[in-house]
Amino acid sequence: VPDERLLHELREIVGAEHVLTEADVRAPFERDWTGRFGGPCTCAVRPSAAREVAAGVRAGAGAHVPIVAQGGNTGLVGGGVPGPSGRPPVVLSATRLDGLGEVDADARQVTVGAGVVLADLQEHAGAAGLAVAVDFAARGSATVGGMIATNAGGIHVMAHGSMRAQVVGLEAVLADGTTISRLSGLTKDNTGYDLSQLLVGSEGTLAVVTAARLRLVEAAVHATAALIGFDDVTDAVAAVRTLRGDVTGIHAAELLFDGGLRLVCEQFGLAPPLPRPAAAYLLVEAAGRTDVTDALAAAIEHLGVAPERTAVAVDAAGRHRLWQYRELLTSAISATAVPHKFDVTVPVSRLAAFVPAVESAVARVAGGVQVVVFGHVADGNLHVNVSGPPPDDEAVDDVVLGEVARFGGSISAEHGIGRAKARWLHLSRSPAEIAAMQAIKRALDPGGVLNPGVLLADLTTS
Amino acid sequence: VPDERLLHELREIVGAEHVLTEADVRAPFERDWTGRFGGPCTCAVRPSAAREVAAGVRAGAGAHVPIVAQGGNTGLVGGGVPGPSGRPPVVLSATRLDGLGEVDADARQVTVGAGVVLADLQEHAGAAGLAVAVDFAARGSATVGGMIATNAGGIHVMAHGSMRAQVVGLEAVLADGTTISRLSGLTKDNTGYDLSQLLVGSEGTLAVVTAARLRLVEAAVHATAALIGFDDVTDAVAAVRTLRGDVTGIHAAELLFDGGLRLVCEQFGLAPPLPRPAAAYLLVEAAGRTDVTDALAAAIEHLGVAPERTAVAVDAAGRHRLWQYRELLTSAISATAVPHKFDVTVPVSRLAAFVPAVESAVARVAGGVQVVVFGHVADGNLHVNVSGPPPDDEAVDDVVLGEVARFGGSISAEHGIGRAKARWLHLSRSPAEIAAMQAIKRALDPGGVLNPGVLLADLTTS
Repeated sequence: VPDERLLHELREIVGAEHVLTEADVRAPFERDWTGRFGGPCTCAVRPSAAREVAAGVRAGAGAHVPIVAQGGNTGLVGGGVPGPSGRPPVVLSATRLDGLGEVDADARQVTVGAGVVLADLQEHAGAAGLAVAVDFAARGSATVGGMIATNAGGIHVMAHGSMRAQVVGLEAVLADGTTISRLSGLTKDNTGYDLSQLLVGSEGTLAVVTAARLRLVEAAVHATAALIGFDDVTDAVAAVRTLRGDVTGIHAAELLFDGGLRLVCEQFGLAPPLPRPAAAYLLVEAAGRTDVTDALAAAIEHLGVAPERTAVAVDAAGRHRLWQYRELLTSAISATAVPHKFDVTVPVSRLAAFVPAVESAVARVAGGVQVVVFGHVADGNLHVNVSGPPPDDEAVDDVVLGEVARFGGSISAEHGIGRAKARWLHLSRSPAEIAAMQAIKRALDPGGVLNPGVLLADLTTS
Repeated sequence: VPDERLLHELREIVGAEHVLTEADVRAPFERDWTGRFGGPCTCAVRPSAAREVAAGVRAGAGAHVPIVAQGGNTGLVGGGVPGPSGRPPVVLSATRLDGLGEVDADARQVTVGAGVVLADLQEHAGAAGLAVAVDFAARGSATVGGMIATNAGGIHVMAHGSMRAQVVGLEAVLADGTTISRLSGLTKDNTGYDLSQLLVGSEGTLAVVTAARLRLVEAAVHATAALIGFDDVTDAVAAVRTLRGDVTGIHAAELLFDGGLRLVCEQFGLAPPLPRPAAAYLLVEAAGRTDVTDALAAAIEHLGVAPERTAVAVDAAGRHRLWQYRELLTSAISATAVPHKFDVTVPVSRLAAFVPAVESAVARVAGGVQVVVFGHVADGNLHVNVSGPPPDDEAVDDVVLGEVARFGGSISAEHGIGRAKARWLHLSRSPAEIAAMQAIKRALDPGGVLNPGVLLADLTTS
């Protein structure tokens, strides 16, 4: 039964046209990018200012209705959609918090709303001769707020760090409806606990981020990409170290396997990138103020790779062609079924051993399944996709995440824990750490208003 | 009256020779680098392992005696020494936590004890062909643990970020004696709140850091330094933007004034760096894998600076000579009296206006004083030193920090709040932020065991 008084309050705050209650209009807010239905919401609310978010949080808390903050809804672990149980929450959609502040070229910073889409921010920064350091395939829909909530990583972490490293300060609404604001752009500011950094990666459980002051980086004038075929992963991993040592400005080093590459070719009708298939592929890109194409070519020769196993691209069209094999992978994998998706990190030194180990482990519990692995080599970050077992069959999750723990890895590299991985949190965090996280959650959200069931599953709303 | 039972316990934990109770032996632990006496301690304890720290924290908590963690004792705000009131604490000195792990060249990381001195870490990384991104004048005594507790900045923040950006993960003992450990070196690890990052800059109030996994950066092969004279600060600030645009690898841009430079020359018998004095000086350094001396010279010409206003140095001896004017400043200022020291940030765009404003403000409340300003231009970070007024005369603190707040700045850029600046915390943090910080402090240290009186002055030990 919708809470009519709460709906009335919310309509007063944001205007009636921005409180969405009809089942078919609400539906897109109740399902994330994986296509799984999370749970019903009371309504989806679309605030356009921080003070509307604050009033909305106070209204929800007053009615004992939880608040779920949502950005571009490209999440893969159910962290930005309602859960299956408990009181249906209010979804606070950030998409109207889309202000793009003027770029501060002296400080190399910009202030933007939480609902700004990454691609729009990239264009805005580019117009001022600067760039956003974080980039990934979902750039056309992912928002700044979601990127902060999940500490988004992507393809350039090896050069510039993840979203955490780009956040100079945040504006955010706490569970009690008070607003904290650190948007003045001071890079050096050691006046107590860095609340902005605490919110990065907290998945909407401690506050609703409304705006961010972000660092920008020098825009690249030149870029060169190369796709290189290898006989095994060990060689590909070793190659990254050599290439980084030899070439300035390597900012991406993506690992692909033959199976994934063939899947993209089939799904999207693309020709293979090299004359003959290889077991593993490395897609590297160097970018900067000077053209390093010659240095990259020399470094690849230094690796002893045969010329027919390398495709190099300097112009935008050629680079786009090479990057397609990587960027279409997620869609190709999800085209026919909802896969079990794992986003894990293992120590770089153990990455090559991890891939066959996880494949064997999956084969032991589920026959005839498709396993597609790809990832960001320099970060030890692998995306493991298992298609075949039904979405609610957790045996495959148990073995994959168990292998990750056995290899001393993290069960979530860049997607967060959300609802989907909460059951396995103990594989990556010790009881002392979970207790400390719970203490912080209770301290900042004693009523359990913000995103109950996400991350710390056993702390639910009051 | 020393607590004999507590001393007995501590001796059991670390060995009797590492529990220092005699007044003259304790004395160096009760006074920080500024020379000010903080307060008496019950004893200074020198643990050599995390489990000894954990047992020590439990013993202190059990006896209701506070714990003050101390590193190289180069702090400037009294954050690592006992306070003047309350029960005399146990000082936990980290200097024996001095383990230097093997450098992991693939991951570009190293694990080190909290008591490792920065210069030793720099040498260790250098032997593996890598470098520590953070550097500052106190490198010979400052420890990794203290650098983490204060989120140390220094001269290369403009290129590599502050200590926060170097911390991949920490091992630390919480107030209840439990140990958290994130030393496996996973750069991408989004499994809940980043407790390591929360501890960076928390000044020993939330945990005692015992070890750190740190990021290393590419070692520079070439370095070029230039000291450039300007007629005013505005020109110097504008020059930094031009130089960064024109030259790859500018990693330091220090601002000095004629008064400070003359003070160094007098105190240390040095000749001035340029034929004629200038109002303001910029000390810039570019470093990297390639020699950019020509590009730097061209960029300085592009600025329109006359050749006799520039001193360029390429070899180590020459660079040392230029850097001396900057690195000896702190000692020169403190040679004759204990100055009122301020470490503040203002937005880069307001830096030039801030300098005369703060000088006028000081002149209004204190006549005949010496004001020496220097700083890190690209970060908007200025060190303001006022010699003359007695250390306990807070009128000068009120006006300097009041000006900082008026300029939208931070009252502590890189030294922290400690005990010395706690009274002015409200100038940089809102009531909502202070309330959130207090909630976190209470959640993780409900008994107020760790560093009471530091940072959040009104939360004292139980």
